[in-house]
Amino acid sequence: MTDLYNFSAGPAMLPEAVMKKAQAEFRNWNSTGVSAMECSHRSPEFQALGNAARANFRELLNIPEHYEILFLHGGAQMQFAGIPLNLGRDAPYAAYVQTGTWSKKAAKEATSYLPVRVIASSEDARFTNIPRQETWAACEEAAYLYYTDNETVHGVEFSEVPEVGDVPLIADMSSNLLSRPVPIERFGLIYACSQKNLGMAGVTVVIVRRDLLERQAMERTPSVLNYALEAKADSMLNTPATYSWYMMNLVLEWVKAEGGVDAMAQRALRKSHMLYEIIDASDYYHCPVEPGVRSRMNVVFTLKNADDTAAFLSAAGKAGLKNLKGHRSVGGIRASIYNAMPEDGVRALGEFMQSFEASCG
Amino acid sequence: MTDLYNFSAGPAMLPEAVMKKAQAEFRNWNSTGVSAMECSHRSPEFQALGNAARANFRELLNIPEHYEILFLHGGAQMQFAGIPLNLGRDAPYAAYVQTGTWSKKAAKEATSYLPVRVIASSEDARFTNIPRQETWAACEEAAYLYYTDNETVHGVEFSEVPEVGDVPLIADMSSNLLSRPVPIERFGLIYACSQKNLGMAGVTVVIVRRDLLERQAMERTPSVLNYALEAKADSMLNTPATYSWYMMNLVLEWVKAEGGVDAMAQRALRKSHMLYEIIDASDYYHCPVEPGVRSRMNVVFTLKNADDTAAFLSAAGKAGLKNLKGHRSVGGIRASIYNAMPEDGVRALGEFMQSFEASCG
Repeated sequence: MTDLYNFSAGPAMLPEAVMKKAQAEFRNWNSTGVSAMECSHRSPEFQALGNAARANFRELLNIPEHYEILFLHGGAQMQFAGIPLNLGRDAPYAAYVQTGTWSKKAAKEATSYLPVRVIASSEDARFTNIPRQETWAACEEAAYLYYTDNETVHGVEFSEVPEVGDVPLIADMSSNLLSRPVPIERFGLIYACSQKNLGMAGVTVVIVRRDLLERQAMERTPSVLNYALEAKADSMLNTPATYSWYMMNLVLEWVKAEGGVDAMAQRALRKSHMLYEIIDASDYYHCPVEPGVRSRMNVVFTLKNADDTAAFLSAAGKAGLKNLKGHRSVGGIRASIYNAMPEDGVRALGEFMQSFEASCG
Repeated sequence: MTDLYNFSAGPAMLPEAVMKKAQAEFRNWNSTGVSAMECSHRSPEFQALGNAARANFRELLNIPEHYEILFLHGGAQMQFAGIPLNLGRDAPYAAYVQTGTWSKKAAKEATSYLPVRVIASSEDARFTNIPRQETWAACEEAAYLYYTDNETVHGVEFSEVPEVGDVPLIADMSSNLLSRPVPIERFGLIYACSQKNLGMAGVTVVIVRRDLLERQAMERTPSVLNYALEAKADSMLNTPATYSWYMMNLVLEWVKAEGGVDAMAQRALRKSHMLYEIIDASDYYHCPVEPGVRSRMNVVFTLKNADDTAAFLSAAGKAGLKNLKGHRSVGGIRASIYNAMPEDGVRALGEFMQSFEASCG
């Protein structure tokens, strides 16, 4: 049987070592005699797991003590609401940079809570670049400045952290957290859902500077979405998605064992370069994204003849290269190559692309 | 090795057959070659799983077509906010019946969204009974009437559905859904988190009469908490906790295979009677709850000498009877015996109780 490589954009593949461990201890976790999913969140074993997960994040990302680490419900889109609800009260406006589907959606959701100013957007360029920072409108009075560090649909990723002065900088790192070092102190808040680089769906990590927790949340903020209340309750105001926490901690341990975020960053560069080089050396494949901001996580490209796309996907699937279809809003091909995707998988895709081009190009 | 029985109130034990199946197919679900947790929620396989789960709920609970079935994020407490946000707009007030910790918390959360009238409460009786319906205050103008069908902390359960005329009746059935037939048409909305009778934590099922979806949600309702939007999106406005859906569907299939909710109801009666009979026949054990409203799901009791409680828990644990400690707010003992708890487990607990009484009583 051929090896299978799963290029799903999320929920995405998990490291083989993690899956093997989870399967082996599925019904008897940590000598408790029961599954991690059958353990009370208030049990000493599970409390220890929560503490370990927070400590692992702190170690891996070098998170200073004046940042709180929350594990929340509801996926990233819950935070599209959570961020304005918690940080936008009585503010004149919030600033958003639009570089793809997700930042655009986040800005739209925010308009339900406070005035929104889109201070930069690459929508006119069909989200194939990132506006240079010197072109961004000013936003000194903003409650915060929000951007999406990696856009999974359009394959666009920031290569550096914007300079924004005293305005709290908020980044959605749902699809690239743990794939490189992050200068945490330059951020007010960073968040990421779990189903790309952190584990399985069901938990969203929010790393937030403690002084921001002193901002009063807006009226009608649901308690389980209130950062200050969740911080006080160690993210257990109610029962969390415990198995998602468990899987996340296994992934954190795996990243540590593999050499941490520096090692992940080197791999991500090698893997994405492998594909971009093939694309750029070819007349058959085309990546619409400007070279300096191409994503290391989601490599998007089209075929010279769009009609070949279905044949490409079908042949790739038969070769064990699964879930390469581009997002329905943009079409084409998308290879999502998060931390868990081995270099062998990317190499297999590269070889497939070259042989497909040779036969069709 | 002794059999281990896990009496955790939630996250609770899952049926052995479900756990074995999940473990066996952990890394290769449904011949996909990947885990259910590594599958895109937009994949045909996962779409089919969502449809199957909805169809299974409809079949098991005989849910009419004019009720929508939603699978939402955030646990039951998210719905403490979701219910007023979605159903309480412009209403003069909402009515709540307080019969324990959870209904009291729900009423408190609701005060952030609209005026709340507690039309009945057993708090003065320390939540050991349920006020007779003829004593409840009127609530004809209420947006809805909310109650908690089973209170896990105090071990109190409604034995029948309240008669409330035209006011939409809302029930939190987090801890007893699927444990007996429910006359769905008498309700406006029923909801339940997953980690007691439905599977592992991470999903909350909301069964709601379609006409209620026409009520406009309050301003500042997060999109992923907006019932009408989630209904339109088949509960996939964003990535759900996919593995929680998967486990829930395995549990639904198991309930069907075991004879459905009628069979679950018979078992629940047998199991709970077994313990209440031992308690009532003894001078050593005491159940504070009025007989007519004792929970079939959470059997709470105290020992004649409260100082024996720690010894009871320790000896029970050694005998493989785990997680019997009462909720920290009430102390004593609590045996949570949801659908997945086999009768053998309850029998083992009963025998242990009798022998412990003989040695200490």
